[in-house]
Amino acid sequence: MNELSQKNLKKKITLLLFHLVYFSSNNVSDLCVSQEFLRGRPKEIPHNEKLLSLKFESLDYDNIENQLFLDEERRMSYMGFRCLEISRWVICALIGFLTGLIACFIDIVVEQVAKVKYNVIKENIETFTEAGGLSISLILWAVLNCSFVIVGAILVAFFEPIAAGSGIPQIKCYLNGVKIPRVVRLKTLVVKVCGVICSVVGGLAVGKEGPMIHSGGVVAAGVSQGRSTSLKRDFKIFEYFRRDTEKRDFVSAGAAAGVSAAFGAPVGGVLFSLEEGASFWNQMLTWRIFFASMISTFTLNFVLSVYHKKPGELSNPGLINFGRFESDVNTSITCFTLFGRVQAELLLCLMSAVLFCRYVHRPCLQVMEATLVAAVTAAVSFTMIYFSNDCQPLAPDNTEVYQLQLFCADGEYNSMATAFFNTPEKSVTSLFHDQPGTYNPLTLGLFTLTYFFLACWTYGLAVSAGVFIPSLLIGAAWGRLCGILLASIFSSSSTWADPGKYALIGAAAQLGGIVRMTLSLTVILVEATGNVTYGLPIMLVLMTSKIVGDYFQEGLYDIHIKLQSVPFLHWEAPATSHWLTAREVMSSPVTCLNKIEKVGTIVDILSNTSTNHNGFPVVVQVMEGDVPAKLCGLILRSQLIVLLKHKVFVELARSRLTQRKLLLKDFRDAYPRFPPIQSIHVSQDERECMMDLTEFMNPTPYTVPQETSLPRVFKLFRALGLRHLVVVDDENRVVGLVSRKDLARYHLGKHGLEELHLAQT
Amino acid sequence: MNELSQKNLKKKITLLLFHLVYFSSNNVSDLCVSQEFLRGRPKEIPHNEKLLSLKFESLDYDNIENQLFLDEERRMSYMGFRCLEISRWVICALIGFLTGLIACFIDIVVEQVAKVKYNVIKENIETFTEAGGLSISLILWAVLNCSFVIVGAILVAFFEPIAAGSGIPQIKCYLNGVKIPRVVRLKTLVVKVCGVICSVVGGLAVGKEGPMIHSGGVVAAGVSQGRSTSLKRDFKIFEYFRRDTEKRDFVSAGAAAGVSAAFGAPVGGVLFSLEEGASFWNQMLTWRIFFASMISTFTLNFVLSVYHKKPGELSNPGLINFGRFESDVNTSITCFTLFGRVQAELLLCLMSAVLFCRYVHRPCLQVMEATLVAAVTAAVSFTMIYFSNDCQPLAPDNTEVYQLQLFCADGEYNSMATAFFNTPEKSVTSLFHDQPGTYNPLTLGLFTLTYFFLACWTYGLAVSAGVFIPSLLIGAAWGRLCGILLASIFSSSSTWADPGKYALIGAAAQLGGIVRMTLSLTVILVEATGNVTYGLPIMLVLMTSKIVGDYFQEGLYDIHIKLQSVPFLHWEAPATSHWLTAREVMSSPVTCLNKIEKVGTIVDILSNTSTNHNGFPVVVQVMEGDVPAKLCGLILRSQLIVLLKHKVFVELARSRLTQRKLLLKDFRDAYPRFPPIQSIHVSQDERECMMDLTEFMNPTPYTVPQETSLPRVFKLFRALGLRHLVVVDDENRVVGLVSRKDLARYHLGKHGLEELHLAQT
Repeated sequence: MNELSQKNLKKKITLLLFHLVYFSSNNVSDLCVSQEFLRGRPKEIPHNEKLLSLKFESLDYDNIENQLFLDEERRMSYMGFRCLEISRWVICALIGFLTGLIACFIDIVVEQVAKVKYNVIKENIETFTEAGGLSISLILWAVLNCSFVIVGAILVAFFEPIAAGSGIPQIKCYLNGVKIPRVVRLKTLVVKVCGVICSVVGGLAVGKEGPMIHSGGVVAAGVSQGRSTSLKRDFKIFEYFRRDTEKRDFVSAGAAAGVSAAFGAPVGGVLFSLEEGASFWNQMLTWRIFFASMISTFTLNFVLSVYHKKPGELSNPGLINFGRFESDVNTSITCFTLFGRVQAELLLCLMSAVLFCRYVHRPCLQVMEATLVAAVTAAVSFTMIYFSNDCQPLAPDNTEVYQLQLFCADGEYNSMATAFFNTPEKSVTSLFHDQPGTYNPLTLGLFTLTYFFLACWTYGLAVSAGVFIPSLLIGAAWGRLCGILLASIFSSSSTWADPGKYALIGAAAQLGGIVRMTLSLTVILVEATGNVTYGLPIMLVLMTSKIVGDYFQEGLYDIHIKLQSVPFLHWEAPATSHWLTAREVMSSPVTCLNKIEKVGTIVDILSNTSTNHNGFPVVVQVMEGDVPAKLCGLILRSQLIVLLKHKVFVELARSRLTQRKLLLKDFRDAYPRFPPIQSIHVSQDERECMMDLTEFMNPTPYTVPQETSLPRVFKLFRALGLRHLVVVDDENRVVGLVSRKDLARYHLGKHGLEELHLAQT
Repeated sequence: MNELSQKNLKKKITLLLFHLVYFSSNNVSDLCVSQEFLRGRPKEIPHNEKLLSLKFESLDYDNIENQLFLDEERRMSYMGFRCLEISRWVICALIGFLTGLIACFIDIVVEQVAKVKYNVIKENIETFTEAGGLSISLILWAVLNCSFVIVGAILVAFFEPIAAGSGIPQIKCYLNGVKIPRVVRLKTLVVKVCGVICSVVGGLAVGKEGPMIHSGGVVAAGVSQGRSTSLKRDFKIFEYFRRDTEKRDFVSAGAAAGVSAAFGAPVGGVLFSLEEGASFWNQMLTWRIFFASMISTFTLNFVLSVYHKKPGELSNPGLINFGRFESDVNTSITCFTLFGRVQAELLLCLMSAVLFCRYVHRPCLQVMEATLVAAVTAAVSFTMIYFSNDCQPLAPDNTEVYQLQLFCADGEYNSMATAFFNTPEKSVTSLFHDQPGTYNPLTLGLFTLTYFFLACWTYGLAVSAGVFIPSLLIGAAWGRLCGILLASIFSSSSTWADPGKYALIGAAAQLGGIVRMTLSLTVILVEATGNVTYGLPIMLVLMTSKIVGDYFQEGLYDIHIKLQSVPFLHWEAPATSHWLTAREVMSSPVTCLNKIEKVGTIVDILSNTSTNHNGFPVVVQVMEGDVPAKLCGLILRSQLIVLLKHKVFVELARSRLTQRKLLLKDFRDAYPRFPPIQSIHVSQDERECMMDLTEFMNPTPYTVPQETSLPRVFKLFRALGLRHLVVVDDENRVVGLVSRKDLARYHLGKHGLEELHLAQT
C-alpha cells in the first residue's frame, strides 16, 4: 500500500510538471484519461467528460397532481394557504438564523484556534531565531498543520466523502434538478463544518466561504422538512413541504443565506441562487430568499459584534470583509489599464482549472495526500519566509496580524510572513489595505507563484474547503504587483499611487475567471467592499474575464460537474440542434403500465435492474401486439413502492372494508428515502392481485408530439423542471419518454453537435 | 365646453375633499364608479377593476416552429448562431449607449432651462421684495410654469396619449406579454422625452426618472428591429430579431438600461427587469441585460462628466444622485426605531395610491387640467415661501441651489424656498445632506403636507412624468421631520444627531410603499446612495413597507394595470384555484381550420368581428357533425393575413410554376404591424381556391388534457410565455383553447376566488 501510494505520488508529480511544461493541449479529459492510463488502476469514478453517468437520478420538480393531491388542495381553505405561506416565511427565517449561527461558529473557532497555533509557532520561532535551530520551528509548524489536516481529512474521507471541496458544484447540480446522493444530509453538514475548521486552521491554501453555501443548503433541506432522518426525529411539522418542489425552493434560500453569511452580501446571495440555480423566477420565492439572506447576515453580524465586544456595531458583515475602501479613486483609469492584464490573469485561471483534476480515491490515500499537502505547504511557507529579506517597519496599530520579526532589525517585521504566516482572509485584507511600499515586488511575485501552485495542488483534496479565498489571494497579490510596477513606470501621475486598489481589481479578475459568475459576483464583491464606486470597474473586469475565459475553457464548477458526468441541463439547448426531434431524442420502447395492473408485473418491472426506470406512463390498455396504447397518466417508481409497501391491492380493498385508505401523508412519510424494491416482500399470492393506479398516477402529464424539435422539448423541460416528458403520436398513444439524460446527452463540441455516451457508473 | 369643464373641475374638487374626509372605504373601484356616476358622462375607458378588457392582444413569446422556421434554423451553421449571438451583444451595447445619451439630453436640457427659469424668477422676486409687488412675481412664476406645462400637455394629449405618466405600468404589461398599442413606437419616445422636459421644468411635482425606463424600452424595440416603421426606413439588418420573443428580450434590456441611467444603478436595473418582467430566467439574457445597463450608466457618466468639465470623473452616476453618505452611522438603532413609523408612512402611500384615479379624457380638458395644476403648484409654493419665516444663515459653498433671501436678513435665506424653489432632485439631496438645523420642523411638516397633495393631484395628469422623485421627496421630508423630533426627545444620545439619515430611510419607505418592489429597489437605493452600509436598514424598511402595504392595497403600478383592465398574468395561479380544470377555463367551441382550407372560409372567419380570434387550431379534418377533429397544428391570424396578402393558394402554385415561394422574410417584413383583414382584397374566384397551411402552421403546439388543473395550466402558460394553449381530449381532438384572458379572469378577492367579466372595450 505504502509503496503504491509513493509510486502514485511520484507519478503525480511527474505529471504535474509534465503538464506545466507542455501546456499546449489544455483539455481536461485528455489529462484525466492519461492519468487513468498511467496509473493502471480500475476506474472507480467515471472521470470523463465524454460520458454521462446514469447513476444520478433527477428530482421531481413537477408536482404530481394526482387525485390525492388535488383532493387535499381543494379541501384547503384560503386561510390554509395563508398559513402555508406564513410557515414558508418562518422556515426562511430559521434557515437564515441557523446558517448565520453556523458561520459564526466556524469563524470564532477558526479565529481562536488559529490564534493559539500562530502564537505557539511565533514564540517558538522567536526563541529559535536567536538560538539558531529554526528547523525545529519548521517541524513544529508542519506537525501542527498536519495534525489538523489529518483530522479533517479523516472525517471527510472515511465518514462523508461528499463533504469534500466547497460543495458549490453539488448544490448547483441539486438546484439544476439532479439528485446527488447524501448531499443535503445532517451528517454531511457536521463533517463539512468540522472539516472546514480543520483545513483552514491546518494552514492549507483554502477558504471557509465556499462550504458555507453548502452548509446553508443542508440547513435549509433539514429545517424545511421538519425532521431529521439521520437522527430519526420527526417533529410532525412542515409535512406539506415534503416533496422535491418545495425542498428545492428552500435549498436555494439556504444557498443564498450561505453566500450572504460568507460575504455579508444578501443581495449577492439572492443573485447567486438565481444565477446558478433557479430557472423559473418567481417573485414571491425571490423575496423569501432575500429574507433568508438578510436574516443570515444580520444574525452573523449581531453575534460577531457581541463576540468582538461591540454589540450593535453592524458595519462589518460577512466572514470575509474587504475592509473599507476610500472612494476617491479615479476609477475609470484604473479599470481601463487593467483590461490588458485580465487576459494574462485568465490564462492562469485556466491552468488552475485544468490542474484541478484529482485521481486518488482510496480513503487512506486521500488522508495521506492531504497530510502531505499540509506538510509541504508549511515547508514552502517557512522556506519562503526564511529566505525573504523584505523587512518593513512595524506599524504601531496593526495588532491583528501575526508579525514575525525573524532576521529583521528590531522594530521591523518580515513582509513575506504577513502573507504566509496568517489566515488567508487576513492576508487578503492586508494586501488590499497596507500602505504602498509594504510589500516589495519580489516578495509579491514569489508569493503569487508559490501560492498558485499550492492552491492548485490543494484543490480537490479530500478536505472541506473553498476556492474563493485562494483565488482572491492570488489575484490580490498579482494585482498589487501590477499596481507597484505601473506606479514605477508612470511615477509622475498620482493616480497610480495606491496598489491596494489594483489588488482588489486583480482579485476580482482572478475569482471571476475561475468561477465565471458575473452578476452575482459583482454584487458580492461590491457588497464585501462596501463601496459602490468600485462597482463599475469590478463589473468591467468580471465581464472581460468571463468573455476571455469562456474562449478557452468553461468555469471551474462546470468543469467539476462535467468530470463527474452529471446530466446537467444548461439554460438552452445547443444552438444547432434544431434538426433533432423528440423522435430521435426519446427513449423507446417505453415500459408502460395498465391503469389496473397485476402486482406481479409491477414487481418484476421494478426489480429489473437492467432498465431501472423511474417513471412509467400509465395507459388505458396495452394491446397484444406492438400497437402502443393511449396515455392516461404517469406514475413514479417511488409511488409504486409506497403502494406495494402498503399493499394497496384491489382484492384487499374489497375483502377488508375497514382498510385504511392510503393518504398523501404516507407518501410524505416515505419521502425522500424510499425503500428499494428488494426490501419489499410480495408473496406469490399477492403477485396475482391487481393494483388500481387511477388515484395515484398523475393524470395530466405534459406531452409533446413526435415532431417537436429538441430546443422546444428542452425549453418545456427546463422551464418546468420536468423529470419525464411523454412523447405521443397524433392519437395520444405513447411512443417514447424523454428524460433528463436524453437531453443532457447533446452538447456543442468542436465539431458541431456531439452526443455523449451513457455509462452505468 | 368651458362651462362643462368648469363644472367638472368643481365636482372634482368637491370629490377630492369628500374622499379626503370620508376616507373609510379605500376602494379604488368604488371611488371611480362614484365619479363616473356623478359625472354622468358615457364611459370612454373602462376604469373598472372588475372587468377584463378584450381590446388588449397578447404577444407571441412562443416561437412558431413551422416548416419555414425549422428549415432556416437547420440551414444555419454554428458560425451563423455565433454571429447572431454577437449581434445580440452589439444591439445591447447600442441600447445602453442610446439610452444613456437620451438621459444626458434630458438632464442637460432640464438643468439649463430650469437654471434660466429660476434665475429669472429669483431676480424678479429680489427686485419686488424691496419694491413690494410680489404678486407680479407670483404671476410670472405661474405663467412660466404654465407655459412649459401647456406645451408638454399638448404634446401628450394630442399627439401620443400613451406617453402620459411614467410608462412603467405599460412596460410591465409589455414584458408580461400584453401588447399595449403604440407603446414602443418612435413617436412615443419623442413625445415622452419632450414631455418630461416640459413637465419637470414646469415645476410640477414629478420626476424624470420613471420615463427613462419607458424610453429605454422604446429605444430597445427600435434598435433591435433594425428599422423604423414611423420613419419608413428599413436598414435591412437584425431581420432575425423581428419577432416577439426576441423583441421582448431586448425591451427588458432597454428597461434595465433606463433604470441604470436614471439611478446610476446597473445591477438595480437588471433586477428591476427581472422582478417586474421576465418570468423565464436565462443566464445569457441576464448577462446581456447587465451589459446594456453597464454601457448605459457608463455613457451617461462619461457625457455628464464632460459636460461638467471634469472628464473621466465617473463617481457620480445617474440622473438622481443621493450624494455621499458618511458610513459611521450606528445603523442598527436607526433601522429599528423606524419600524413603527413605516406604518404611518404606508397609510399615506395608500392614500396617494387611491387618489391617483383620473377621469378627464378629452385632450383639451386634459391640457387645461395640467395647466391648472401647474398654476396651483406655483401659487401654493409661492404662498408657502411667502408665509414662511424659517430663516437660515447662508452657507458659503452651497452655490448649486437657488437660495431666496426674501424677507430674511442679509446673509440668510428662506429655508422653505430650498424645498420648493428648486428641481425636486436637488430638494431631495438637500434634505438628505443639509446640516442638522437647516430646516425647522414646521417647515418640513407644511412642506410634506402640501407636496403630498400636489403629488397626488399631479399623478395621472396628461404629462410625461415619473412618481419616483415625488415619493422620495415626500418620504425624505417626513423622515427628516421624524429625525428632528426623535433628536429632540432623545437629546442625550449622539446617535440621533443626523436627520439626513432619517430622510434617506423615510424616502426608501415611502417609495417602497408606493411601488412595492423590494429586491430591485433595495439595490437601486444602495447604488444611488453609494454606501453598502445602508443596505441592511433599507432592506428592512422596504420589506416592512411591502408587508404592511400589501395588507391594505396593491402597489401603484398594479392598481394602474387593474384600472386599465389589462389581462395581466401574475406569477402564480390563485391559491384556491385547484378545483378549476382546463375544461372550465377554456373557451369552447373553437374555430378550427382544415389543413387544406378554402380561402373563402378563412376570409369569413378572419372578418368575423364578433369573435376576433387570433389563433386557430389546424385539424386533420373537420367532421360534419359536432365531433371534434384531431389536432395537427396551430396557425395565427397574422400568418393567415400574410398568406392571403401574398395569395399563396394551391391553384396558383399549380398553374404558375415560377411563383415565388413564401419565405420567413415575408412574415418578418410584415411584423409587427400586420394589415387588417379588411385591407386585403380577395376576389370571388379566389374565394373558391384552397390554401395549404401545412408549411406555415406550428405543427407542435403545446397541449393539455381537459382534466388539467388551473394552476398546472397557469404554470405552463406563464413559464413558456404562451398565447394559446390547445385543450385536447384523450384522442388528441381539439375541445377548447385557453388564452391569456381565460387565465387572467380568475383572481383572489375578498370572498375567495372571483371571476372578472370580459368587456369588449
